[in-house]
Amino acid sequence: MIDHLSKFISTSNSTTVKGIGDDAAVLDHDKYYEVVTNDLLIEGVHFDLSYTPLKHLGYKSVMVNLSDVFAMNAQPSQITVGIAISNRFSLEAIEELYSGIILACEKFGVDLVGGDTSSSLSGLVISISALGRVDKSSITYRNTAKTNDLICVTGNLGAAYIGLQILNREKQVFKDNPSIQPDLEGNDYVLERQLKPEARGDVIQELKKLKVLPTSMIDISDGLASELKHLCKASSKGCRIYEVKIPIDPQTVTRCEDFNLNPTVCALNGGEDYELLFTVDQSVYETIKDIPYISIIGHITEASAGLAMIDASDHESPIKAQGWDGLNPDSKIQ
Amino acid sequence: MIDHLSKFISTSNSTTVKGIGDDAAVLDHDKYYEVVTNDLLIEGVHFDLSYTPLKHLGYKSVMVNLSDVFAMNAQPSQITVGIAISNRFSLEAIEELYSGIILACEKFGVDLVGGDTSSSLSGLVISISALGRVDKSSITYRNTAKTNDLICVTGNLGAAYIGLQILNREKQVFKDNPSIQPDLEGNDYVLERQLKPEARGDVIQELKKLKVLPTSMIDISDGLASELKHLCKASSKGCRIYEVKIPIDPQTVTRCEDFNLNPTVCALNGGEDYELLFTVDQSVYETIKDIPYISIIGHITEASAGLAMIDASDHESPIKAQGWDGLNPDSKIQ
Repeated sequence: MIDHLSKFISTSNSTTVKGIGDDAAVLDHDKYYEVVTNDLLIEGVHFDLSYTPLKHLGYKSVMVNLSDVFAMNAQPSQITVGIAISNRFSLEAIEELYSGIILACEKFGVDLVGGDTSSSLSGLVISISALGRVDKSSITYRNTAKTNDLICVTGNLGAAYIGLQILNREKQVFKDNPSIQPDLEGNDYVLERQLKPEARGDVIQELKKLKVLPTSMIDISDGLASELKHLCKASSKGCRIYEVKIPIDPQTVTRCEDFNLNPTVCALNGGEDYELLFTVDQSVYETIKDIPYISIIGHITEASAGLAMIDASDHESPIKAQGWDGLNPDSKIQ
Repeated sequence: MIDHLSKFISTSNSTTVKGIGDDAAVLDHDKYYEVVTNDLLIEGVHFDLSYTPLKHLGYKSVMVNLSDVFAMNAQPSQITVGIAISNRFSLEAIEELYSGIILACEKFGVDLVGGDTSSSLSGLVISISALGRVDKSSITYRNTAKTNDLICVTGNLGAAYIGLQILNREKQVFKDNPSIQPDLEGNDYVLERQLKPEARGDVIQELKKLKVLPTSMIDISDGLASELKHLCKASSKGCRIYEVKIPIDPQTVTRCEDFNLNPTVCALNGGEDYELLFTVDQSVYETIKDIPYISIIGHITEASAGLAMIDASDHESPIKAQGWDGLNPDSKIQ
C-alpha cells in the first residue's frame, strides 16, 4: 500500500533529502543529516496484552523505532510518543508503560521530548517517532548495494518468531484450562527476543570504530527474506545466500523442533528480530570476519541472477518472502 | 496526565533545548532551532466518520499539527503520517484520506516524508508528527509573557464548537428518522471551521513582515480559557480580558441562539478553533491594532491578580477552563 500511495507523493522542500522508501526519511541540516521515522504499534495486531508486560511493551516500542534509525547508520537523539489508552488502564499501568519507554531511551541517550496522550474507545495504540543524526558521508541507504558486496547480518534470526509461538501456545493452553500454569521454562532466550528486543546500536558503534562503512543497510523487522528482497529490489541487484551461514541460536533450533518448524524458514520469514542486514565491500572481509555477532551469509549479484539460497547439498532455490503476520492464526510460515 | 508523567522525564541530550511542556519540542541545529510535535486523532474520540469526509479528515489532521508548529513561530517543513485502518476501508477511501493530507501539505510547502500504515481491529487512528524550523532569535514559547503585554487572538472563536453541535444534532435527527435529510443550510462557515480548519501560517508570515515578535504564543486547540490558563501558568502571570473584545463570527452568534448557548462560553471553552493566542509588548500596539484578523482582547498582569474576564457591565469574573470533550454527550460547556 505504501508503494501504491508513494506514487502520489512528491517532495518539494529543499531540506528533504529522502522521503518515503527507506527505513527513515533523511533531512538536510547543513553539516549533517537528520533521520526521522515513525512506527505504530496496535493492540491485537502488533502485541497481545494477555502475555506482554507493559514495561516490556514500552521498551520494545522504542527499540522498534531506534532499529530504523540505526539502519540509516545514525545515532538516535529524540523521540516523541503518542499513546491512546482506554480507561481500563490505571495510572500505575500507564506509568509502567512509560517506565519501559524511558529505560529504552536511557540505554541510548535518547530524550523523550514530546507527544500526545488520548483516550481510546478500544485498544491501546502506541505511535513513536524517532529522530537521529548522522554525518553526511556515513549515511547508509538500502538502494546502494553493489555487485560482489558481502551480505552480513547481525545477531541471530528466528528467535523472536519462535518465542511468539510459545507465548501463543501457552495462551491457548491457559484458555482451555485456566488451572494449568504456563510452561515457559528453558525458553528464556527466545521469549526475551520476542518481548524485549534490543536495537543494534552496539553494531553501529563497532563498525564506526573499525572504520567499516556498509555500502547498504536495512533493519530486519519482517524476516530476512523480505528484507533481502527490499534491499536487492531498491539496489537493482540479485543475491546468493548460503543456508548454513544463516545465524540461528541453538535454543531457536530446539524449539523449532517442538513446533515441527524448519529453523531456516523461521529465520527467513519469522520477523521481529530487529537485527541489521547490511552489505560491505569485499575489501573489509578480514576486518569483520571474526566479529562474533556479525555473520557473512552471502554476496550481491547482478539483478539478472535473481535472489536465491544455496543449501548444504549445494541445491539452489529462489528466495520467497512471505512477510510476517504473527498474531494471525491463519498465517503459516511453512 | 502529561503533567504527572513529565515528572519522571528528564532530558540529557545536548541537542534538546525544550522537551515536554510547550506546543512542540525544540531541538538545537547550530544555526536555527527545529521544532517537533505529534498529535493523535482517534475515531470516536476526535472525529466521527458518520459526518466527516475522509479528505477533510486528512486535511484537518495535518492542520492540527501545523498549528502547533506555527505556535512556536516556526515554518513547517516535513511531516510523517502513521495510519491504522480496519479492512472496512477500500483503497479508494485511503487515497481520499491521503489526498486531504497532501492538499494540506501543499498549502504550506510541507513534505510528507514517511510514516507507517497498519491494520486496525477497530477504529481509524491517525498519528502525525510535524517538523519545522525557526531562527533561534524568533522562537516563541508559552512561558515568556511579561506583565502589561497585550493579549491577542487571531481569527474568531467558538465557530468550530457550534459546527460540531450542528453535525451532532443532524446525526441524531437522521438516526431517529433516516428519511429526513440533514439540514445544513446557512451553516457553511461554522461547519467548515469544524471540518476543515486552517492553521494560521498566514499570521506568522504577516507578523514576520511587520517585524513584530510575540513575547509568548500558544495555539488555541482546547478553547481560549484553557489556553490562557496554560500561558499564564507557564509564565507565572495573571490576565485581564474583555468579553466584548473576544472575536466571534456573526454566524456563530446566531447558531448559539438556536442551541441556547452563550457565544462567549463557546469561545472560551469550545475548542478546535486552531487559532493562535499570543502576547506582544505594548510598544507594537500601533502596528497591529488595525490588522483585521488580530484582536487585542486584554493584557497580562502579575500572577497575584489572577485570571479574569470583564464583561460589558464592567463586572469581573474569574476565568474557568472546562476543557473540551466534543464527542462526549455528557460534556456540557455551559
